[in-house]
Amino acid sequence: MPVPWETIAQKAQEHRDATISLVEPGLPEITDLPLDSSPVPKAILTPEELAITESDPVDLVSSLASGTLSSVNATNAFLRRAALAQKLVNCITELLPNAALERAKYLDDYLKKHGKPIGPLHGLPISVKEHVKMKGRTVNAGFIAWYDRVADRNAHILDIFLAAGAVLYVRTTQPQTLMHLETSSNFYGQTVNPFNRNLTSGGSSGGEGALVGMRGSCLGIGTDIGGSIRSPAANCGVYGLRPTSYRLPIEGLSATMLGQEQIVPVIGPITTSLGGVKLFMKTLIDAKPWIREPSLVPFPWRTEPQVPANGGGIKKLKIAILWDDGVVKPHPPITRALKTVAEKLKGVEGITLVNWEPYKHDYAWTIISSLYFCDGGSEEATAIEGSGEPWRPLSRFILTDNPNVKKLGIRDVWDWTLKRDDFRAEYSQLWGDVDVILCPVGPGPAPLHDTARYWGYTSQWNLLDYPALIVPITKVDPEVDVAEKNYKPRNEKDRYNYEFYEPEKFANAPVSLQLVGRRYDDEKLIEVMEYIQKSIGLPFTNFV
Amino acid sequence: MPVPWETIAQKAQEHRDATISLVEPGLPEITDLPLDSSPVPKAILTPEELAITESDPVDLVSSLASGTLSSVNATNAFLRRAALAQKLVNCITELLPNAALERAKYLDDYLKKHGKPIGPLHGLPISVKEHVKMKGRTVNAGFIAWYDRVADRNAHILDIFLAAGAVLYVRTTQPQTLMHLETSSNFYGQTVNPFNRNLTSGGSSGGEGALVGMRGSCLGIGTDIGGSIRSPAANCGVYGLRPTSYRLPIEGLSATMLGQEQIVPVIGPITTSLGGVKLFMKTLIDAKPWIREPSLVPFPWRTEPQVPANGGGIKKLKIAILWDDGVVKPHPPITRALKTVAEKLKGVEGITLVNWEPYKHDYAWTIISSLYFCDGGSEEATAIEGSGEPWRPLSRFILTDNPNVKKLGIRDVWDWTLKRDDFRAEYSQLWGDVDVILCPVGPGPAPLHDTARYWGYTSQWNLLDYPALIVPITKVDPEVDVAEKNYKPRNEKDRYNYEFYEPEKFANAPVSLQLVGRRYDDEKLIEVMEYIQKSIGLPFTNFV
Repeated sequence: MPVPWETIAQKAQEHRDATISLVEPGLPEITDLPLDSSPVPKAILTPEELAITESDPVDLVSSLASGTLSSVNATNAFLRRAALAQKLVNCITELLPNAALERAKYLDDYLKKHGKPIGPLHGLPISVKEHVKMKGRTVNAGFIAWYDRVADRNAHILDIFLAAGAVLYVRTTQPQTLMHLETSSNFYGQTVNPFNRNLTSGGSSGGEGALVGMRGSCLGIGTDIGGSIRSPAANCGVYGLRPTSYRLPIEGLSATMLGQEQIVPVIGPITTSLGGVKLFMKTLIDAKPWIREPSLVPFPWRTEPQVPANGGGIKKLKIAILWDDGVVKPHPPITRALKTVAEKLKGVEGITLVNWEPYKHDYAWTIISSLYFCDGGSEEATAIEGSGEPWRPLSRFILTDNPNVKKLGIRDVWDWTLKRDDFRAEYSQLWGDVDVILCPVGPGPAPLHDTARYWGYTSQWNLLDYPALIVPITKVDPEVDVAEKNYKPRNEKDRYNYEFYEPEKFANAPVSLQLVGRRYDDEKLIEVMEYIQKSIGLPFTNFV
Repeated sequence: MPVPWETIAQKAQEHRDATISLVEPGLPEITDLPLDSSPVPKAILTPEELAITESDPVDLVSSLASGTLSSVNATNAFLRRAALAQKLVNCITELLPNAALERAKYLDDYLKKHGKPIGPLHGLPISVKEHVKMKGRTVNAGFIAWYDRVADRNAHILDIFLAAGAVLYVRTTQPQTLMHLETSSNFYGQTVNPFNRNLTSGGSSGGEGALVGMRGSCLGIGTDIGGSIRSPAANCGVYGLRPTSYRLPIEGLSATMLGQEQIVPVIGPITTSLGGVKLFMKTLIDAKPWIREPSLVPFPWRTEPQVPANGGGIKKLKIAILWDDGVVKPHPPITRALKTVAEKLKGVEGITLVNWEPYKHDYAWTIISSLYFCDGGSEEATAIEGSGEPWRPLSRFILTDNPNVKKLGIRDVWDWTLKRDDFRAEYSQLWGDVDVILCPVGPGPAPLHDTARYWGYTSQWNLLDYPALIVPITKVDPEVDVAEKNYKPRNEKDRYNYEFYEPEKFANAPVSLQLVGRRYDDEKLIEVMEYIQKSIGLPFTNFV
């Protein structure tokens, strides 16, 4: 007789809770969950733990390499903060305190013995989205039926990070199917937003987003095929990068549709600083991942400037602003963030601003959502129904209620691929001498639960395979970000998005923006954002 | 009533002949076709024409840029030699004398007026395989049913070459379906080998191979998805490169299965020198083709050395030799060429030779030939049968007699793609510190007509997406290259190949070798080959 899905879910939760309970010193139960979880750690953790967990990962690797901070101390601080984050926002599938502390101890001993770090991430605790295979552990991709799948080896990225000296100490939640811009599963329910529990943390790397937003991690591994790194990074007020495809290793993900290459999933960082983004990228690319994974392009991470500066350090930059994709109009706080940044950029010498005219973003969605599930979604349906677990609302939305999901023939796939390529070529021509595009990450701040239905602001760049960087800007202020009255929605999607915006419901939610570059301009994107941050000061609000 | 296919074929031939007849001064008919066509031009063309057409393309662009040679003179010389090649080896679909001479005149005038060339290929005549779209002209991919398809714009590569100053003067033959390692179609029959008309020129870029072999072109555009650049280059004693995918533009090819990306076709050069290979690659990549065609990787053509040398110019190189792929044993002249080169390389300081153990090359063929036609070959069948033309024997061989051709479902394609990736990863691990692999281009010299059934020595590198460079080495000498007696074939393919080798039949055929690199090591490959050429002197025989 098959095991009821509820039994498996309960087992998963019990396992998670057992791992959390191993943390020392133990943490109090939070009986009255606050709307805004972000201040809670300050009341519970030690000053040293707060200092460690709120440090920039670049500073942490520096302290760890010099031995001024031990990996055991760093790891334990992150273990405790992560455990606390779990109690507050429900972002963890399992904590790995024993293995992590043992590893941290090994690294501390190594440093003492050899007088030098083992690699560029020596001693740094790193968080990992569940479906990234970790040897000997379940990898279920959010499907109850897959709970007994156990990884027989590490994903490629984990081996590189381990060789670089990382400590793996926590695995994070993901939604059923991995194809939501939220994080809700029948294993663990919903992962909620650190700043407002009525809102989603985003997804599908929403466990990472919430954990990093809570500073229970400073550097985590996410994956993105339609916005899954960027939506949680943006919703939780942290940094995230969806790199260009074929730069970072993706071998060793547990997911449906493996072998599909029309729309390539990518791995990328969710982290607390731009330095964290760079550290993640450079560590992986310097490890020459193309030897084990030959689909990757063997080109180095470029450290030389991608935008030349004059003698005074002034860069000549043309930044295009996409205010609105022409399909779904962003909520007022998003537009305010764009306006404020644009105003400040106008005062920066060397920067030229232009408007980016959206080009067929609705058609782009038709293409990408036709290519996502060219088997008609049958793998997802099988994986869901295998255990008898119910369909989560957003699984229904993207799979069964999505008019673009069809069982395609081989020629159909080729035709959509050609349309994709034509669209990419047309879009490429729009750039002219524009360096980067600044735009929303979604049609609003973190959505209410089960309402994240519009992917266009992120999936657009997956279709085009452009790198896209998320940076936190400000927070929703209901007094300023009032709803637009008498707005006439353009279409059903626009109406849906417009109608659920009531400023009070989104109070305190992070507002982030997205910087987009041409294919393989990953380095340039980070460099430009560093320059913008330095020039105008970002974010405008504190998130810890 | 549909037009009989024979009528269309006749029309195509008449058109071709009409364009050939425009050449001035006109050429004599060759009534008694010789076995070896290669010496014929010396008896018919002027000394100036011979000097021009037998020049290295690098020297030609230099003379053209300085004005010491006019483009009109160069173009007319190549027009005449190409016309003659057509009469001898049947390699042309149409000559473009009027347009080419008008263009050459324009370029000569431009140089006079501006005192500088228009681009890096100023005035250089370039030949083009038929299925590369040329605006306003038929592009039929070898299918009679497609003869009325007319290109509405140039293929991307032609626009780049035109902007660089090239003169397009001739279009060359290809086989029915483009999926033969020979060049036989119902339009024009067989393109034959310049050195022995009983042998094939190779294919599918066999028109290019034969034309360049005859020196009716010094630089031509071929395409390769299983050996289609390398087989003709090798069979005709010239140079060819199958570059890594996504480096050169491929937008604008007329072919079946467009949109298929599991095995990516590439464009590459067929040319009379290594300098020609480099000129082709650098010109295209310097033009930043990734703007119009965003699937290409935006990485420059590297001009800095890829293999460091010591102060005395000695390079430390590890070269692995693949003597035999373990599936089909190469004919004696191939093994002799490898042995001779290996012997000489042993004497070169800094070079280490090792043997390359073949790894599942038979399985590699299963994977690639399963992925070639995942629609079960239905597009090819439709295209052939649309006109009523008969199936050519090698179309039958690769499509209907091939046990790996099946109508696959979406999941099947994904599974084969995963197998492809696993195989690529396994093969990548074999390299260690090997720099390049030296190996046969096929299981013998140019095959007898309709017998080129073994693709493994070239398709292996398509599956792995490795760059592969063809260099001419020597010619078959029936007195030396005697057949092996009492050989016991390993399998049916091996038996087939073994049994048709009778040295006398292959007399005078070019023997070439293939140098293979890791993915994206295109520059390194050329650099290593230049170094080998300089070190041991290649080819060992003259081909003109």
